[in-house]
Amino acid sequence: MLTKLDKLLRPSSVAIIGASSNEKKVGYAALRNMKDCGFKGKLFAVNPKAEKYGFELLGIKCYTTISEIPDQVDLAVVCIPARFIPSLIEEIGKKGIPYVAVITAGFKETGSEGAKMERQIVDIARKYNIRIVGPNILGIIDTITPINASFADQTPIKGNIAFLSQSGALLTGILDWSRAEGIGFSSFISIGNKADLDETDFIDALADDDHTYAILAYLESINRGEKFIEVCKKVTRKKPVLVLKSGRSKAGAKAASSHTGSMAGADTSYNVAFEKCGVIRADSAQELFDMAFVFSCMPIPQGNRFVIITNAGGPGILATDAAEKAGLELVTISENLENKLREFLPAASSFGNPIDALGTAQAEDYEKIIEIAFKEENIDGVIVILTPQAMTEGQETAEKIVELHDKYPEKPIIAIFIGGEELGPPIHYLKRHRIPCFPLPERGVEAMGALAHYSSIKNRPIEEEIKDVDANREKVRQIFDNVKKEGRTTLLGTEAKNVVKAYGINVPPTKLAHSADEAAEFVEEVGFPTVIKITGEGILHKSDIGGVKLMIKSKDEARKAFEEIMENTKKHYPDAKELVEVQYMVPLGRELITGVLQDPQFGPMVMIGLGGIYTNFMKDAAFGLAPITFEGARKVLQQTKTYILLKGVRGEAPSDIDAVLDTLVKISHLAEDFRQDIDEMDINPFFVYEEGKGISAVDVKITLK
Amino acid sequence: MLTKLDKLLRPSSVAIIGASSNEKKVGYAALRNMKDCGFKGKLFAVNPKAEKYGFELLGIKCYTTISEIPDQVDLAVVCIPARFIPSLIEEIGKKGIPYVAVITAGFKETGSEGAKMERQIVDIARKYNIRIVGPNILGIIDTITPINASFADQTPIKGNIAFLSQSGALLTGILDWSRAEGIGFSSFISIGNKADLDETDFIDALADDDHTYAILAYLESINRGEKFIEVCKKVTRKKPVLVLKSGRSKAGAKAASSHTGSMAGADTSYNVAFEKCGVIRADSAQELFDMAFVFSCMPIPQGNRFVIITNAGGPGILATDAAEKAGLELVTISENLENKLREFLPAASSFGNPIDALGTAQAEDYEKIIEIAFKEENIDGVIVILTPQAMTEGQETAEKIVELHDKYPEKPIIAIFIGGEELGPPIHYLKRHRIPCFPLPERGVEAMGALAHYSSIKNRPIEEEIKDVDANREKVRQIFDNVKKEGRTTLLGTEAKNVVKAYGINVPPTKLAHSADEAAEFVEEVGFPTVIKITGEGILHKSDIGGVKLMIKSKDEARKAFEEIMENTKKHYPDAKELVEVQYMVPLGRELITGVLQDPQFGPMVMIGLGGIYTNFMKDAAFGLAPITFEGARKVLQQTKTYILLKGVRGEAPSDIDAVLDTLVKISHLAEDFRQDIDEMDINPFFVYEEGKGISAVDVKITLK
Repeated sequence: MLTKLDKLLRPSSVAIIGASSNEKKVGYAALRNMKDCGFKGKLFAVNPKAEKYGFELLGIKCYTTISEIPDQVDLAVVCIPARFIPSLIEEIGKKGIPYVAVITAGFKETGSEGAKMERQIVDIARKYNIRIVGPNILGIIDTITPINASFADQTPIKGNIAFLSQSGALLTGILDWSRAEGIGFSSFISIGNKADLDETDFIDALADDDHTYAILAYLESINRGEKFIEVCKKVTRKKPVLVLKSGRSKAGAKAASSHTGSMAGADTSYNVAFEKCGVIRADSAQELFDMAFVFSCMPIPQGNRFVIITNAGGPGILATDAAEKAGLELVTISENLENKLREFLPAASSFGNPIDALGTAQAEDYEKIIEIAFKEENIDGVIVILTPQAMTEGQETAEKIVELHDKYPEKPIIAIFIGGEELGPPIHYLKRHRIPCFPLPERGVEAMGALAHYSSIKNRPIEEEIKDVDANREKVRQIFDNVKKEGRTTLLGTEAKNVVKAYGINVPPTKLAHSADEAAEFVEEVGFPTVIKITGEGILHKSDIGGVKLMIKSKDEARKAFEEIMENTKKHYPDAKELVEVQYMVPLGRELITGVLQDPQFGPMVMIGLGGIYTNFMKDAAFGLAPITFEGARKVLQQTKTYILLKGVRGEAPSDIDAVLDTLVKISHLAEDFRQDIDEMDINPFFVYEEGKGISAVDVKITLK
Repeated sequence: MLTKLDKLLRPSSVAIIGASSNEKKVGYAALRNMKDCGFKGKLFAVNPKAEKYGFELLGIKCYTTISEIPDQVDLAVVCIPARFIPSLIEEIGKKGIPYVAVITAGFKETGSEGAKMERQIVDIARKYNIRIVGPNILGIIDTITPINASFADQTPIKGNIAFLSQSGALLTGILDWSRAEGIGFSSFISIGNKADLDETDFIDALADDDHTYAILAYLESINRGEKFIEVCKKVTRKKPVLVLKSGRSKAGAKAASSHTGSMAGADTSYNVAFEKCGVIRADSAQELFDMAFVFSCMPIPQGNRFVIITNAGGPGILATDAAEKAGLELVTISENLENKLREFLPAASSFGNPIDALGTAQAEDYEKIIEIAFKEENIDGVIVILTPQAMTEGQETAEKIVELHDKYPEKPIIAIFIGGEELGPPIHYLKRHRIPCFPLPERGVEAMGALAHYSSIKNRPIEEEIKDVDANREKVRQIFDNVKKEGRTTLLGTEAKNVVKAYGINVPPTKLAHSADEAAEFVEEVGFPTVIKITGEGILHKSDIGGVKLMIKSKDEARKAFEEIMENTKKHYPDAKELVEVQYMVPLGRELITGVLQDPQFGPMVMIGLGGIYTNFMKDAAFGLAPITFEGARKVLQQTKTYILLKGVRGEAPSDIDAVLDTLVKISHLAEDFRQDIDEMDINPFFVYEEGKGISAVDVKITLK
C-alpha cells in the first residue's frame, strides 16, 4: 500500500490541463494516453477553448477552467506554455488539487529567466500545499492503477520495478527497449527539473508499495544529499535501490586547495553516500537493467554461496571468472553431494563447481542437479549454463527450470542460454516465465552477484548510534570568530592545533613567539628537541625557503634559529611578520594524513590515508560521511591498504589503530558541529605510534568558508 | 590470399572419414554440412561398411578405405572412435593428405591414457608431415570457400571476422547467438586440444587472409607463448587480434617463494604478453563481440578524437562518462564549427561535445551535423545517439547514417539507438547495412574505444632491436655449476651478488668471512661502515635471531660482531657453519625491489616496484618479458606509481631513473641467458640514488631450478 504520494501515483481522478485535439501536441498525447491506458477513475480535460470543441475532447468531458470541474481532482497534468503556469498553479491551489505534474519545459534548463519562473511556481505551490513533479518531464506512468499521464508513445509492460529518471528522453528509450526485452515496470516516473518532489520523495513513497520489488533510478544529481541517505538507509532494508549516477567525468570536479580535497575524485562522495545507505550503484545502463531483471524476478538469497551447472567447460570457466569478480563463492561440492550426482551423471562429468554434466546432458539431468542443489542447505542459489549441442534439450530444460523455480521459490536461479536463433524459443519461454536469462555468462553472473550483495545489505546489523564527543566547543567558536573578525580564512598553525585539541586530539605542545627572546623562553616550555618554523598567512614552502629549523636543543640555538628563520623568510616575503611557532618535536611515527572536506551534496566528509611523500602519488585514502561512529571509522580505514601496514607488516609492531579511529570520530564531530564554518582541514603529518602509544597531530591546517 | 593453411581452410577436396547415415552420429552431421554448405570442391565419404550403403551416403560417393579414393584429398575430417585413429593417421599419411581435422573426443581431456594416444597420433602425423587440428573439436567452418566440416547444426552468416575457440560448445552457442544478432564470420575454427596446430598457427595464417578483417579468439591457455608473441607482434600491425582469455581466477596461481613471484597474479603474464604484442584483451564475451562488431564494419581511425551527437542530455552524459573510461577524447567544438551548427540548430541546443541537437532533431539535422564532423580534420570518428521522442525520425536518421558512411568511409561511426520495439526497424536497418548499433550507450562507446586503441597499436613505432649487454657469462656459468654441484638450489648472498655483478650491476663490496679474524681483515677491505650478517642455506629471519650487526666502524667491532652473531645463530641453528658476509653498508637510497620470475607460458619476466615495507601491501609493481630494451624498461616502470616518486615529488631531487632502467635491461638479459638455470631472483632492497648517482643492489637472492 502506498501511504505517501498515493494520490499522485494511484489517483482516483485526473485532469489534463492543456488537453488538445491536435495530434502533434503534448496535450493530445497525454489525454489520449490517459484515455487508452485503462484508467478506472475520473478523467477530465481542460482547455480555454472548450466551447469550440463542444466541451468534449477525444470523448472526454472538457472544461474551460479548472474551477468548473465539478469533482475533486487528485492529479493535475499540465501541458500549457510555461508563462501561463504560475497563475494556473494559483487556480489549482484554489481548487484544492494536491498534486501537479508539470510536463511543460522551458524552466531552469533554459537559463536564469526560466529558473526564476520555476522558483515562482514552487513558491505558489507551497502556499497551497500543492506538491509538484517536474517541470520538464515526460510524465508519470503507473501500471498498477493504471495511469499513463505522459506524452510517451507507448506504455510499459506491467511489472514490479519502479524506475525514476532525471532524463525524460532516456525514459522513452528505455520504455521502447524494455518492451522488446520483456521487462516490466510498476511505476515509470520522470522527475525532470526536480523543482519540488525529488528522487528522495519517490524512493520514500515507493518503499511502501507492495507492487514494487525494486526501485531503479537514473540520476544526474541528488537534491538533498543527507535526506537521501536517511531515507535510503531505511528503504534498503526493505527493498533494493539501484542507481545509475552519471556525470563521473573529471570536468565536474571542484578544485581543492587541501590535500584532503585533492584526494577525492569528482564522484567519491556519491560512492561513499551510496555505500553508507545501502544503495547499489550500477556502472552502466546495461548493468542497471540486468540487475533489475534479476531483482524483480528472484528472491533475495541467504548468502553468496552459489553453484554453477553447465553442459560445456568453456562457458563454465568464463562464469567462474565472473563469479570471483562478482563476489560469489562457488561452494565446494561435498562428497555426499558428489555421490548423489554420480548416480546419474556420466563418470567423465566434472563434479567440481562448476558441475559440468557434459554435452550429452538432458533436461532430466539438469532437473536432477538443480533439485539437488536447491535442497542443499549450504547452497544459496543456482546458475544454469546451457550451450546448444547435438543432444541438448533447450526447451525441455527451460521448462524444468520454470517448474523447479515454482517448487523452490525461496532460492534464486538464473539461466545463461548461449544462443539466439535455435535457442530463441526456450530463451523466450524462460523470460516469459520470469526466469532471468542471459545470452553470455558474465552479465548474468554479475547481476546475480549484485543480488547476493543486496542480501548482505538487507541484513546488515543496525549501526550503533552516533554519540556526541566531549569537546570544548566554545573555545573553537571563539577561535573561528576571532579569525573571521581579522578577515582571515586560514587559521594559524597554533590556532588550528587548538581547535583539534579542543576535541581531545593530541597535538605537540606549541607556542607562538614574536621575538628571539620569546623563542628562547618557549623552547624550554614545550620541551626539547624543538622545531621552530615561520608562520603567517600566505607563507608557502616553509622548508624550502629556510623557514624551518629542526632539532633545536638549547635556548641559544633557539635564539639563533629565530634570527636565521626571519632573515631567510624576508628574502622571499619582505613583509612577513616576526612570528614563529615553537613546537616540541615529537618522535617520528608512522606517517598518515587525515582531514575534512565539504561535499556540496552530502555535507562534511572525513578522509584518512597514507601520509608523507606517498600521499599524492599512491592516493591510498578512504572517505566517510561525518559524523562517524568508531566502527564506521574502522570500516573507512579498512578500505585503505594502509590499514594492513598499521596492523604490522614484516614483524613490525602494530600501530595504535584505536587512536587513529578515535581521531577520525573526533574530527568528524568537529566537522559536523562547525559545518557552517569549516571549508577544509588537513592533519598532515598525522603520526601514529605503536599500539597503546597514541597519535600526534603534528601539523593542522584549517580553512574557513 | 591465404598463404598458410590454405588447403585446410580453403580446401579443394575433402574426405569425411567415419561418414554415417545415422542422423544421431557426428559422421552424419559432418557429411550433411559439407554437402549442404555450398562447397564447390570434391567431397568423399569413407566408411568401412561402404558396401552396405551401396557405396553412397547422402548422395556422396562412399569408399571403404581412404586409399581407394581416386583423387588427391586436401583435408580429411575424422569422426571415427579414438582407438582407431592412430592406424588411420598412418593410412592418411600414405595417401598424402596434408591436413586432418580430428573431431573425435576421448584424448587428453579424459586423462593419461587419452593423452598417450594423442601424443601417438601427433608422432605419426609428424612422420608423414601431416598437420592436425584437434582432436576434440566441433570442426572447421569457412564461409569464403565455403566449407562446413563440423557437426554444428547451423552455418554462420558470411562475414569478415575469424573466430578461434578452444571450447567447441562455446562455438555452437556463439554461432546460434550470432545468427540472431546478425554478426558474420569468415572462418569459425574449433581448435580443441591443440595437439598440433594451435592458436598461433591460425593467427599467423589468417593474417594473410583478405577476407578476414579481425581475428577473435577464446583461449584457455596458449601453447607456445613466445612464438605467439612473435607472430602477434607482426599480425597486429596488419589487423586486430582480440582475445578473450578465461581462467583468471586465483586457483590457478603458482605458489611463489620470491617476493617477485608473489607480486604477480595468476594472470599477469597474459596481460604483459598481450600488451607486448598488441593483442587486445576482452574482459567478457559480450565485450569481445561488441568489439568484433565494430572492428569488422568500421575503418581504423587516425586517432582517438571523437564527437558525440545526441538528441537527449541524459544518454549524452552516460556516453561522456563511458568515453572517458574508454580513452576517447571528446574534442572541443571550435568556434568555426559551432557557427556552422548554429546555422540550422535551435539556439537552445548544446554546442559542446556531446552536441545536443535537442528532442526536436530531425534526420536532416543529424545528417548535417554528422557531415560537418566527418569533414573536420581534427575529428577521428563519430558516435550518434538517438532516443525515440515525439518528432524523432528513427528510420530516416538510420538511412542518413548509412548514406554518410558510404560517402565518408574513412571515418568510423557507430549508432546508439536507445530502444527496441518502435526503434526495431531502424536498428535492424543499421545492422543490415553494417553500421554497428547498440541499445545502450556504454557498450558501444567502449567498443569504439577499443577501435581507437587499436589505431595506436597498428601505428606503434617499431621497437628498437634487442642488443646484447656486456657480461661475464662464464663467471655466472661457473657459479651456477658450483652451486648445483654442491646440491644446493639457493645461492649464497655473495654468490648471487657476483652473478649480478657479472652483468655490470653495482653491488656493495662484500666478502665471505669464516672467522673473527677474517671478518676483521675484510671490514677494512670493503670499507666502513660495515654490516656483518650470518649466511648459509636455510637460515631465515637473520635480523630477528640476532644474526645481523650494522654500523661496524672498526676491526675490533667486527671481531666482536662475528662472535656475537655466531653465538646468537647457534641458539636457533646449532649446526650453522661459521660463515658471515662482511659488506660495505651503502647509504640509504630510495627503496625499490626488482627481480625475475619464470612464467610457464611466456618464459622469463622481470619485475620492478616499490620496495621496503610497502612492497607487499601496496603491490605497486609492473612486469615485462625478458629480454627487454631500455625504452621497453621505461614503459614497464611507467606503469608503476613509483615512477612518479622517482621523478621527484614535493621538491625532492629526482632519482637516477636511467640507472634503474639500465638494471632492468641487464637483469632481463641475465634471465634470458640463463633461463634454463634461474627459477626466481629478487634484488631487495634495491636502492636508487639521486640522478647521476646510480643504484645499489644491496641484497640479491637467486634460486635455481
